[in-house]
Amino acid sequence: MMNIVRRIEVAELAGVSEATVSRVLNGVGPIKEETRQRVLEAADRLGYTPNAMARSLARRRSGNLGVVMPYLPKARLFSAHYFSEILSGIGSRAREEGYDLLIVFRDPDGATDVEGLFRMQKIDACLILGAKEEEGERDMLRRMQEKGYPFCLINQHFAGESFNEVDADHAEGSYEAVRHLLEQGFRRIAFVNGPEVYSNSSDRKAGYERALQEAGLPVETELLFAGNFSRTSGLRVAEEIAACLDRIDSIFAANDRMAIGIQQGLRQTGIMPEQMPAIVGYDDSDVAEMTSPGLSSVRVPFYELGEIAAARVLHLLEGTEKDEGNKPFQAKLPVELVIRASSLKKAPRD
Amino acid sequence: MMNIVRRIEVAELAGVSEATVSRVLNGVGPIKEETRQRVLEAADRLGYTPNAMARSLARRRSGNLGVVMPYLPKARLFSAHYFSEILSGIGSRAREEGYDLLIVFRDPDGATDVEGLFRMQKIDACLILGAKEEEGERDMLRRMQEKGYPFCLINQHFAGESFNEVDADHAEGSYEAVRHLLEQGFRRIAFVNGPEVYSNSSDRKAGYERALQEAGLPVETELLFAGNFSRTSGLRVAEEIAACLDRIDSIFAANDRMAIGIQQGLRQTGIMPEQMPAIVGYDDSDVAEMTSPGLSSVRVPFYELGEIAAARVLHLLEGTEKDEGNKPFQAKLPVELVIRASSLKKAPRD
Repeated sequence: MMNIVRRIEVAELAGVSEATVSRVLNGVGPIKEETRQRVLEAADRLGYTPNAMARSLARRRSGNLGVVMPYLPKARLFSAHYFSEILSGIGSRAREEGYDLLIVFRDPDGATDVEGLFRMQKIDACLILGAKEEEGERDMLRRMQEKGYPFCLINQHFAGESFNEVDADHAEGSYEAVRHLLEQGFRRIAFVNGPEVYSNSSDRKAGYERALQEAGLPVETELLFAGNFSRTSGLRVAEEIAACLDRIDSIFAANDRMAIGIQQGLRQTGIMPEQMPAIVGYDDSDVAEMTSPGLSSVRVPFYELGEIAAARVLHLLEGTEKDEGNKPFQAKLPVELVIRASSLKKAPRD
Repeated sequence: MMNIVRRIEVAELAGVSEATVSRVLNGVGPIKEETRQRVLEAADRLGYTPNAMARSLARRRSGNLGVVMPYLPKARLFSAHYFSEILSGIGSRAREEGYDLLIVFRDPDGATDVEGLFRMQKIDACLILGAKEEEGERDMLRRMQEKGYPFCLINQHFAGESFNEVDADHAEGSYEAVRHLLEQGFRRIAFVNGPEVYSNSSDRKAGYERALQEAGLPVETELLFAGNFSRTSGLRVAEEIAACLDRIDSIFAANDRMAIGIQQGLRQTGIMPEQMPAIVGYDDSDVAEMTSPGLSSVRVPFYELGEIAAARVLHLLEGTEKDEGNKPFQAKLPVELVIRASSLKKAPRD
């Protein structure tokens, strides 16, 4: 199906029939040289190298499952719990289905041409991490959906669209984390969120607000802080928090890295362990269990997110879910609050 | 160059000239149908789809840097410090040079056809992790070298070959670790190694033996234990060690995961912290710093291994190292012993 769509486009631009396009690209002659050139130029203008089309006609498949990942210079991306777990889940399933993984890093400054990866037949299906709520990205995803390219967003969703999405229930996870702090008796809960361009950030914000409102507490802007998921941004936020620690009794951070950065930053300003505000992180990465005191956190089934998303797009590709038609699937996996010492109310000193 | 080699192979098998192969694949007619079929069959038999060849003739490059990785079902491969760091280094460089990463998992039971990835033009260059000292693997690497496919082994070397290799000095790292234990006064040092099929295992073994021999101590087989780098294998080895703890005063494990598994396993058998044998791990992963007590370990610059190997093969590919001819490069990066509490001699109790 994808194949026909593309051949039609080339045929229309070249002003020839689809059969002629096929003959040119398969080398089944004779074809007038002028016609041949026109087809090749049309293919080229559309970003289809004739060989990619020939390949499509002959084999149809690259055997590659694309994975679009954010790219941050100098960041050890594969070492981040979030990405390494998702990739492990994707890799496990891809391997079992006989696919190789094509890892494509996002362009930090511009739109990433995922559509082009399909068009060039570098990939047969695609999993997209770090999709942003931005006009250009949304438009591209819509075009890809119209063309029937099999793709799935991971840990992200777009309101009002019907893309394939495998997400986790971050609104609920955030709500549980804040409710736990409220139950411990805390009332001035700082919230350190990630960039707003990600749906999981707005989901967490919603969960934070819901928990406060249920407790009859206002959402105060002076309690809201912005990080970018890096430990360094946690260190930076720690300076802001240290300056108003008299008005803050606890902290909820949108990931463990920032939580650990905040703890380190507060320690660096001379705050003693017994004065350290209660803190809950998010992701439940390995470090949460291993730091001292243990970091309370929200466990997200990242491995499963990757595994399920890979399984679904590959099944779509293989046509094994034909009976469901092309109905998009939108999974939202449950998360779980894991309570450790970092968030517990300290017993008053004798 | 790679292109010509391949076209020649097809031409020879089909019994035609290279020009004819090109004409068939480029669709530059007229060609007798019988000849055309013979060329296509030859291409097919050699594993060259005509489209891959056509693609080669038109573009020459896939734009993909291959990364061959071991695959263990259920293991969270990307979450392992070793792989995530190497991949981060590779990814950083690949991204900067404009390449996508094609991750190919090894077949756990059979040989992985890396040669075929080049032949099918799925990749332009390749980095190989987890290469094994086995006949089939060595033969394939030799063939790939003869054909001029740009590849580089990471953290592995083959004695007697001149493959491109970026390795770390594991013999020295192991030697330093054992010497440190000797300096602490330990004499019965158990050594828990990884599978012998990896060169880094034999390197570590050599370092262990050298340190003992210099200290005038024999290498005793009852001190040698075998794991497979997993935490689970550490737990298993712990049972063996627990059974002869009267004859062992310290442990050197070939990676941190096994070291942590050993500690956990020994604790599970009821050994108290003050009776825990001194232990040194290897890799200096995040957990080494975060466990309590801190785990002494040997820091390996995995990120740099990946980054340097990627830079070198991509430069080879771009021809920017032409002046060096095709001389293989063999780097061996230094490693560093990091001493923490786990390996220090405990002060005698009052």
